[in-house]
Amino acid sequence: MALIVQKYGGTSVGDVDRIKNVARRVIHTKNQDHEVVVVVSAMAGETDKLIRLAHQVTPSPDEREMDVLVSTGEQVSVALLAMALKDMGAEAKSYLGFQIKIGTDSAFGKARITGIESEKMLHDLRSGRIVVVAGFQGIDELDNITTLGRGGSDTTAVAIAAALKADSCEIYTDVDGVYTTDPNLCSKARKLSKISYDEMLEMASLGSKVLQIRSVEFAKKYDVPIHVRSSFNDNLGTIVCKEDEEMEKVVVSGVTYNKNEAKIEVMRLPDTPGVAAKLFKPVADANIVVDMIIQTSSTEKGCADVAFTVPKSDFNKALQIVRETSKELGTKEVKSNEDIAKVSIVGVGMRSHSNVATQMFSALAKEGINIQMISTSEIKISCIIDSKYTELAVRALHDAFELDKPTVAEEK
Amino acid sequence: MALIVQKYGGTSVGDVDRIKNVARRVIHTKNQDHEVVVVVSAMAGETDKLIRLAHQVTPSPDEREMDVLVSTGEQVSVALLAMALKDMGAEAKSYLGFQIKIGTDSAFGKARITGIESEKMLHDLRSGRIVVVAGFQGIDELDNITTLGRGGSDTTAVAIAAALKADSCEIYTDVDGVYTTDPNLCSKARKLSKISYDEMLEMASLGSKVLQIRSVEFAKKYDVPIHVRSSFNDNLGTIVCKEDEEMEKVVVSGVTYNKNEAKIEVMRLPDTPGVAAKLFKPVADANIVVDMIIQTSSTEKGCADVAFTVPKSDFNKALQIVRETSKELGTKEVKSNEDIAKVSIVGVGMRSHSNVATQMFSALAKEGINIQMISTSEIKISCIIDSKYTELAVRALHDAFELDKPTVAEEK
Repeated sequence: MALIVQKYGGTSVGDVDRIKNVARRVIHTKNQDHEVVVVVSAMAGETDKLIRLAHQVTPSPDEREMDVLVSTGEQVSVALLAMALKDMGAEAKSYLGFQIKIGTDSAFGKARITGIESEKMLHDLRSGRIVVVAGFQGIDELDNITTLGRGGSDTTAVAIAAALKADSCEIYTDVDGVYTTDPNLCSKARKLSKISYDEMLEMASLGSKVLQIRSVEFAKKYDVPIHVRSSFNDNLGTIVCKEDEEMEKVVVSGVTYNKNEAKIEVMRLPDTPGVAAKLFKPVADANIVVDMIIQTSSTEKGCADVAFTVPKSDFNKALQIVRETSKELGTKEVKSNEDIAKVSIVGVGMRSHSNVATQMFSALAKEGINIQMISTSEIKISCIIDSKYTELAVRALHDAFELDKPTVAEEK
Repeated sequence: MALIVQKYGGTSVGDVDRIKNVARRVIHTKNQDHEVVVVVSAMAGETDKLIRLAHQVTPSPDEREMDVLVSTGEQVSVALLAMALKDMGAEAKSYLGFQIKIGTDSAFGKARITGIESEKMLHDLRSGRIVVVAGFQGIDELDNITTLGRGGSDTTAVAIAAALKADSCEIYTDVDGVYTTDPNLCSKARKLSKISYDEMLEMASLGSKVLQIRSVEFAKKYDVPIHVRSSFNDNLGTIVCKEDEEMEKVVVSGVTYNKNEAKIEVMRLPDTPGVAAKLFKPVADANIVVDMIIQTSSTEKGCADVAFTVPKSDFNKALQIVRETSKELGTKEVKSNEDIAKVSIVGVGMRSHSNVATQMFSALAKEGINIQMISTSEIKISCIIDSKYTELAVRALHDAFELDKPTVAEEK
């Protein structure tokens, strides 16, 4: 007997038939003599519908009331799923954030879980009940309803698995695992059987949308292995877990890309101490997140060229701010480019392999792809290229690192 | 400065524009230096939509989960109204049943309020905030969500008014008060400026659907005067309050009718002690509510004729049960009639006036309307007649008791 936490996303509970399908899967697990906690999201489209309703009332809805509003989506899902389970003869009970005290801070819309009371759930599980929990929502110390941000139900599931010391946390979604790269873009993409928390964090933040980043951080912190799989078939998915020796032998686990950034370059900036801070402070003050930053000596002596990327959605605002600041700092030459993409390779094995970067640059060069910017971390290398080469670059890197071939561990 | 509880029904918050309209009314009241608590129902049609969704999952949804589901309707309303209020510059905060501990018993779908914590609301009111409360919902001792039954938001409003010792409880609806009779049926119908709790209870149970019966019982118990009025205009409505001397001078306050009952007659039933109990027990066991019962000596010696009415929705079931029981009790003659209506006159003044019944019977006789059954209480007389005479009877009684003329008190 194992204690299993299963999370089903919005698509998996998108209509009444799918909810019944989820109920059947849950009962199947229960019948294998397991204890089951199910976490569900709002039915696909419901959260967006509620947000649109709020925006009809006011362009800037109060954050506290927004959480009261959108948390109803998951409330509807848990009630319907518990009804379906009972209708199929199982004992089941739904719980909202306030009922099992999913405690959070008071950051409405992006709250962080601070604690979960496990007694009620454990009592129900020991009594043979299936426990159905509303994802995405919690309460703060003053009993205000809070929500955890987009994809927050993943974090609810992982946090509950941690609180209950569950044997397994299964995240059901509409894809059947984590792939070496986007299968829509590269036909050779291969499903990974295993990936480390750190690799998953890099993959997620680089644009792969399988899991909410925060849920992976939570899983890493409490060492909860996550099994990402599809609710529409019985295939094994991908296990996200602590890295082991075998993983380290794999140099590159995945190739990701991101087309949602734009580049801004400030040329011939007088290079005095503190100039970078002066350039970026107004950008940060406008709540714009800068991703890559590169500073080089300019062709003009005593000057530097600074290039950086921002999300495309903030591009116009950022450009306007930077133009003003640049003028104050003594240069007017600001260039920009929206037609860029970031391609990255991720893998824990990089730490112990020195020539990975060279391999990446060669692979791109062989296809005639010019690299505009480079950024590296311990387990990731990213290059900014012309966006029209994105697909070509992804396929070239996938081939260069032989990601279509199963790893030694997977062959066993 | 007064503390005012206002309740807005589903039609009054039926869309975003109407929610904004309610927000303006609430702020108008607040700006007259009053403290305001607003109770709202689900947007019109939402509760039915949720119930339909549940019935797509299962024909007999679990009652606990049903309450989790339908309580989301009011949650959406309070969030949107609080947003609208804040958008218009007012300080406002929404509360759900669990947040201000609207305690109830555990009778899911028809729970009764047992207590309300007033601290949070009073603190907010004293801080200048408008308090927005979800109607219809509460929590039981184990933190399960409960609902109060159709029209339950009226009861929420009255209970909150009682708990906060409010100066006034205003129920806003789509009619602008309580009328002497149905204006759609009798053009001379007049809005009452005042009506007693007991009269309102009789009117409500007899078919006038302005207020939930339980809210009137609650108001009577805690002596909370209710002001029933329209959210679409500024007219004064009807005050439902404790009866006073002036009210007693009015013999008849209103004429009501009900076409939703059917009549069953059992003829020549051997009249032995306990025979009535034997006849009605199986009906009660089937959860059918019997309204009027009349027993008379039969034309056959030692026998009795028994006639009674049941809701039309239960008519077929009741008829089948009564046919079986009658056979066992020694008679086969069971007659039935679905084409009946109940017309009633209601008024606290009846207690001290002896000839009201005679006046009623004469008025009906003058129009050639035959009375099939009569039932009376302290402040009400009801007659069962052929349903085709309903409109005629209502108008005749309205005329006979001169209900189109304002009372002495109203003329002042």
